[in-house]
This record gives sequence, C-alpha cells and structure tokens, in this order.
Amino acid sequence: MESRNENSVNGEIELGSRETEVTVANNRNMREHDVVLRFVALAFNVTATVVLGVDRENKTVPVRLVATQPPVNVQVDTKSHYVASFLYFVVANAIASGHVAMSLLLILANRKGNKGITMMITLFDLVAIVLVFSGVGAAGTIGLLGYKGNQHVGWHKVCNVFQKFCGQAIASIIISAIAGTILLLLVVLAIFSLYKKQ
Amino acid sequence: MESRNENSVNGEIELGSRETEVTVANNRNMREHDVVLRFVALAFNVTATVVLGVDRENKTVPVRLVATQPPVNVQVDTKSHYVASFLYFVVANAIASGHVAMSLLLILANRKGNKGITMMITLFDLVAIVLVFSGVGAAGTIGLLGYKGNQHVGWHKVCNVFQKFCGQAIASIIISAIAGTILLLLVVLAIFSLYKKQ
Repeated sequence: MESRNENSVNGEIELGSRETEVTVANNRNMREHDVVLRFVALAFNVTATVVLGVDRENKTVPVRLVATQPPVNVQVDTKSHYVASFLYFVVANAIASGHVAMSLLLILANRKGNKGITMMITLFDLVAIVLVFSGVGAAGTIGLLGYKGNQHVGWHKVCNVFQKFCGQAIASIIISAIAGTILLLLVVLAIFSLYKKQ
Repeated sequence: MESRNENSVNGEIELGSRETEVTVANNRNMREHDVVLRFVALAFNVTATVVLGVDRENKTVPVRLVATQPPVNVQVDTKSHYVASFLYFVVANAIASGHVAMSLLLILANRKGNKGITMMITLFDLVAIVLVFSGVGAAGTIGLLGYKGNQHVGWHKVCNVFQKFCGQAIASIIISAIAGTILLLLVVLAIFSLYKKQ
C-alpha cells in the first residue's frame, strides 16, 4: 500500500511538473507573440502619427477672377493641423504609440508574468483601441470630404488640388487602422488566453 | 486516525461547497450587472440610431442674389443620410444595437454560464466598441464642421441655418458615446472577472 501511495505521489509530482513546463512554455510563447505584435503595432502607430503630422502641401493654382481675363496664379497651402480632426488623429496615434512603447517595456521587464501588470496593459490596450478607431473615423471623414466633397451641404472637394497631401493623409489613416486592428488582436488573444486558463 | 481522516474529508467538502456557493453567488451577481448594463447600452444605442436616423430639417432662408434687390426666400432642406459619415454612424449604432439585443438573449438563455458563449459575447462587444467609437469620430467631425466650418479648406458652417438638425445630431453623438463607454465597461468587467478566476 505504502509503495503504491509513493508511486502515485511521484506520478502526481511528475504530472504536475510536466503541466507546469507546458504552462511555462505556453506563457513564453504567448509573450513572444505579444512582443512581436506590439513591435509591429508600435511601428504602424508611429508611422501614422508622423505621416499625417508632417503632411503639408504648397501649390500654385491658376484662378480666373474675370471671365474675359487670363487666370491669375494664386499660392495656396494646406497643413494637417489646419483641420481639428486631423490634429485629433495625430494626438490619438501619438498617445497609442506611447502606450504601446510603455507596454513593451513593461512586458519585457515583467518576465514573471505578474497578473496585475498584464491586466493593466490589456485595459490600456482597450483605451488605445478607442482612441485609434475614433481617430480613424474622424480623419477618414475629412479624407472622404476632401475626395468627394458634399454637394448637399456645399462643401467642395479639395483633393483635386492637394493630391499629394490627400494621398499622404489616406495612407496614414490606413496605417493607423492596421495598428488599431493589431491592438484589437492583442486584446482578443489576451481574452482567449484567460478563458483557456479558467 | 480514520476518524481524523473522515473529519478532514468532511471539512474539505464543507469548504468546497462554501467556495462553490460564493462562486455561484459571484457569477449570478456578475450576470445581473451585465444584464442591467446591457439593457442601458441597448437603450442608448437604439436612441442614438433613431435620433440621427430620422434627423431632418426644412427651412426657408432669405438669400440676397443682387445687392440692390430685396432678398429671395429659398427652401433648403437637410437629412442625415445626405452625409456619408452620418449614414455610417447610424448603421454602426444599428449593428451595435442588434449585437447588444442578441447578447442579452444569449445571456438570459445561457444560465449555466457556458464559457464559449460568454467569450464570443465579449469578442463581439469589442467589435461593437470599434464600430460605435469610429462612428462617433466620423459623425463628430461632421458636427464640428457644421458648427465651426473650416476657413482654411473653405468649408462654411451650416449649423447657424440648421440649428434643430445640428442639435439633434450632437445629442445622438453624445448618446452613442455613452453607449460605447458602457460596452467598454462590460469588456473591462469581463476581463477583471477572468483575471480574478485565474
């Protein structure tokens, strides 16, 4: 009886240590995926911030003031911070970049996988998602108005003049939407992992 | 020895049943909070959808075509679906309403707390958050342009004419932002509960 008990105890210990090994390996794997995805999200968030943040264009446009006279060249310029929604987009992406950079440092420092830190990162990921996607909605609306205008309201399109400016803005919005999707994926993975551990 | 073993086994069973009771009570409490918050979110999402969905205004505006002549009365009208971003906002809030209504039914039917269903609801909550907040960003931009215009781009304000229409739009945007915040709170509570169970 005693020897059977000893065996079973050893068996449990062996099983326990194997489970711990698998859990540790899974956690390490999760953390590696997390770190890689965060690096990609950071690169996209920073790119989106910079690409729209520095976006500007100066153009000389011929304007016909009197129908019978030749057109007059007029210097027109545009900058992203002329439009409040573009400014919001840039600030939102800058904050998201700061959060992702900070979370990367915390994850790399938090090798033991402290639950509280992991949870706080996931909660701030949620805030970053809200910032990024509301920014995409806001800047996307300006982009759409720039390309199409709105004849009902009387807002004319401007992207036929500022082609480079608009192209850069649209690129930045797409890049930011990808960054937001990666942040969303990180939260989805965190939730999956929590449900699995439950 | 035997009686001590029996006592300890009974003690474990008692402790176990008490823990189970506490867990069941906590789960019931969580589900009650969840159901109440979802009802509130549903009410806000549906209200936001309807308030902007039916938003329209007809006005007679005096327009002076020639400086020396008296102004001519012109009939102008506006509807929310004239603006693509308002349409997106309405559709996004309608989808979020549908999701919240469906999730309520699933939670009420899922009394045993099936893990898979609970997780799927949380993941769709995330999608609803993205839809609602991108809609708030998009419609908020139109609202801001309506109230302030943008002199750099040459888009004039229109809310001095369509005051009722703009007021209704802003109310809808604020209501939707509250609905989005409640959905965010639901995901935060789900994550908290998962970390506690870990």
